[in-house]
Amino acid sequence: MKKFNRKDRLAAIMNILTEKTNHVFTYKYFTNMFETAKSSISEDIMMIKQLVETLELGKIVTIAGASGGVKFIPIISKKNAEFFLDDLSSKLIDENRIITGGFIYMSDILYSPDISYKIGRIFATKFWEENIDYVVTIETKGIPLATMTAKILDVPLVIIRKNLKITEGATVSINYISGSTKKIQTMFLTKRALKENSKVLIIDDFMKAGGTAKGIKDMMNEFNVEVVGTGVLINTPDPEEKLIDDYIALLNFKSINKSENKISITPNKSIF
Amino acid sequence: MKKFNRKDRLAAIMNILTEKTNHVFTYKYFTNMFETAKSSISEDIMMIKQLVETLELGKIVTIAGASGGVKFIPIISKKNAEFFLDDLSSKLIDENRIITGGFIYMSDILYSPDISYKIGRIFATKFWEENIDYVVTIETKGIPLATMTAKILDVPLVIIRKNLKITEGATVSINYISGSTKKIQTMFLTKRALKENSKVLIIDDFMKAGGTAKGIKDMMNEFNVEVVGTGVLINTPDPEEKLIDDYIALLNFKSINKSENKISITPNKSIF
Repeated sequence: MKKFNRKDRLAAIMNILTEKTNHVFTYKYFTNMFETAKSSISEDIMMIKQLVETLELGKIVTIAGASGGVKFIPIISKKNAEFFLDDLSSKLIDENRIITGGFIYMSDILYSPDISYKIGRIFATKFWEENIDYVVTIETKGIPLATMTAKILDVPLVIIRKNLKITEGATVSINYISGSTKKIQTMFLTKRALKENSKVLIIDDFMKAGGTAKGIKDMMNEFNVEVVGTGVLINTPDPEEKLIDDYIALLNFKSINKSENKISITPNKSIF
Repeated sequence: MKKFNRKDRLAAIMNILTEKTNHVFTYKYFTNMFETAKSSISEDIMMIKQLVETLELGKIVTIAGASGGVKFIPIISKKNAEFFLDDLSSKLIDENRIITGGFIYMSDILYSPDISYKIGRIFATKFWEENIDYVVTIETKGIPLATMTAKILDVPLVIIRKNLKITEGATVSINYISGSTKKIQTMFLTKRALKENSKVLIIDDFMKAGGTAKGIKDMMNEFNVEVVGTGVLINTPDPEEKLIDDYIALLNFKSINKSENKISITPNKSIF
């Protein structure tokens, strides 16, 4: 078998850690792969740790003990997060995005893997220390954001449905009042989706009054799991009083002036 | 500024290429980052290329010329793909997955970021040379698979809706007959989702008669885009004649025996 030298090992370890972030790889995994001593792998990891800090690529965490190892979390620096959110705001205020009814077209942004991955990095930076077991969202528009956040945190994604599906088996349902339409709606989640006493992070695209977020929280109560955080991409100023108070929004929608074709959206600079 | 040596550069370049796969990074990008000569970066890339091949981590592609550079595609080897699909089949035939009505519960599999990323790798391996512009899916269950495939291919994701949404602006709609329920249904896609003359890859979780896939193809015709491929995770043997013929399925559902609680699913070994 080919003998790998230090630069080979560093590059390969970096590939493996980057492909499966927030996942603990044991030192044994790498000593087997490269047929080398644990002390060499330890040194490799220390070099990677320093490099990752210098270049602000994320964070290397080493875990001591029998179940120990190393993981990489692609945390984003405050400076880079603000730069990204400034750029995202400037994309969203483009007047061509205004559609009939005074809405802003933003599906392309929500569905861009590049953008949703960066949004996922911001949520992961905020919540990775909470030892989250699941990322929970409700169909449809928030799913790509939630998928990326779950991928970065290396935990399962759970999708709450708005219609009852016969292919899901036994489900729990919750009625909730949509904050925007004031209509009573129902959400459904299959009983086997969540283990009791887990910790969940709720991710969604948009929050107006918080009716949907409140519904998801009530649903989580039925499953006896703890909501450790709620993250949304964008919120509105109106109504000022939301139905839930413990959430973070990355962007704040301010106003849309239809006569002047002007949209105002600002990044939330206080997230970190 | 810190001077980076070769092993630092190799590890950092590997991180950057792995985080944004199938994206062309120019040599200039790296010469600026490390303040080093193009010849050094060229040598770095050659070393990474060799390493990636030896360890079967994927494929490094270098593009010559003015718009040239380097990209990493996490293609999966035939051996690893088959190993993964064997493992996935064995998870899916667990008798506890049988739910009332003779369905198999598989949301946890479809929504696992680890699994959907690997499925995305298989689709990307199959289709990366087609220069795809968009990955297209229909809500809901296939969205995580399509998100990962789009992320790996570095192209936008497009989600067709099953209900008309006022926040999408002008939409195109198609009526189609669901192969399983034989009911007429409608799908909607916002007019600005796709540019004409693009190449699209359709990704979905499940195919029975192919009614939905046929509907999506008809929708793509309305947008004057070319469908270069259709990939589904799993198909059924019945009906044998599908409404579309040009697709690949990674797994073949065979049968479900309710009296004996036995499910039969086999990996499609002929995909590569």
